[in-house]
Amino acid sequence: MKLKVYADRMSQPSRAVIIFCKVNGIDYEEIKVHISKGQHLTPEFAEINPMKQLPAIADGRFKLFESHAILIYLACAFPGVADQWYPADVFKRSKIHSVLDWHHSNLPAEAEIILSSSLSKLESFWLKGNGRFLLGGNQPSIADLSLVCELTQLEVLDEKDRTRLLGPHKKVQQWIENTRNATNPHFDEVHRVIMLAKERQQHQRLKAAKNEGGSNMKKPLVSRM
Amino acid sequence: MKLKVYADRMSQPSRAVIIFCKVNGIDYEEIKVHISKGQHLTPEFAEINPMKQLPAIADGRFKLFESHAILIYLACAFPGVADQWYPADVFKRSKIHSVLDWHHSNLPAEAEIILSSSLSKLESFWLKGNGRFLLGGNQPSIADLSLVCELTQLEVLDEKDRTRLLGPHKKVQQWIENTRNATNPHFDEVHRVIMLAKERQQHQRLKAAKNEGGSNMKKPLVSRM
Repeated sequence: MKLKVYADRMSQPSRAVIIFCKVNGIDYEEIKVHISKGQHLTPEFAEINPMKQLPAIADGRFKLFESHAILIYLACAFPGVADQWYPADVFKRSKIHSVLDWHHSNLPAEAEIILSSSLSKLESFWLKGNGRFLLGGNQPSIADLSLVCELTQLEVLDEKDRTRLLGPHKKVQQWIENTRNATNPHFDEVHRVIMLAKERQQHQRLKAAKNEGGSNMKKPLVSRM
Repeated sequence: MKLKVYADRMSQPSRAVIIFCKVNGIDYEEIKVHISKGQHLTPEFAEINPMKQLPAIADGRFKLFESHAILIYLACAFPGVADQWYPADVFKRSKIHSVLDWHHSNLPAEAEIILSSSLSKLESFWLKGNGRFLLGGNQPSIADLSLVCELTQLEVLDEKDRTRLLGPHKKVQQWIENTRNATNPHFDEVHRVIMLAKERQQHQRLKAAKNEGGSNMKKPLVSRM
């Protein structure tokens, strides 16, 4: 029976799981659960995940939730997942657990103060050295995927806010780009909903600015004529 | 070289790591870092954990922080740790990751509203069935240890508050007791600092109540004389 992935691509951990499946050629069925429509709160979905959160998976009779636990399970239970994603080496693997746990407590993309200090720590600690990925790696692991998916949630911010937050962190920007390149075309495809949301927001902001700006600008224009 | 555990027994994840070492006969040296004295903020400790948080370990040249990552590392890297603590079976292990990740986002002992709803979920989901431990187990895993250490932080609360919070959750109470019994005498020994803190607080509350009560009660007493 095919792996079932219950996901809403608007949520960052859902995207991480979907990208992981795609990149590693895991045969899965995506079952869309729309948070905005409250579909995660139905009794049917509570059968899959009693905590009513996304993502969740069902692999035959085995059900699992929490995105990090899911990523680790997929890396271990499916043949053909490259060792880079969740190395068998106990030291390397432990460092990945450490990043993922740190991520849990420090990287909610919504809280700006925590985020700002976390971006500094990413830049100065997790991305120190010359590696292209976290922990000095030359290939991405599940930690890169999970954290970058969290950070791309920033895409929906106003360009000005995004630049203010990410601007000072060149290594973080480069690492996001490296992770994106290493997992494309899947990365972009799965993030398409976020980019669409961003475009909608920009459109609304432009419209608002135009209405506002229009009324402000009319006077000088008129006065010059 | 002996494993070094940097810990403050006043902090719940520190206690979980120390108890784990003791229960499993892991030879270690405890290096006390007093948070109340700001010892975790020194440049010396930043060499061990640049995030300046406790607990942290150093096993030879290998350094690690985040308590869940440490528990998993210890379970994997030290011979003689029973399989129950972090089962080799991928399905069992995945469920443990799921609990630990859920713990991260849902069980900060300080936030009462989250805590209350989390206790309900512990009772109705993670402790469902007849098992004496989480996930229906008959022996504790690192998930039991980590969560119970978090919850014993409630010990320092006023008895009334503690009863109000824990009272409705009989299964949770029994599970805390089961985990305590399964890891004693180490559990009690490591929690001694918490019990002492509790006694100090009770003493202060009694003293305050006595003074307050005293001044309130003096008048009627005087009037009766």
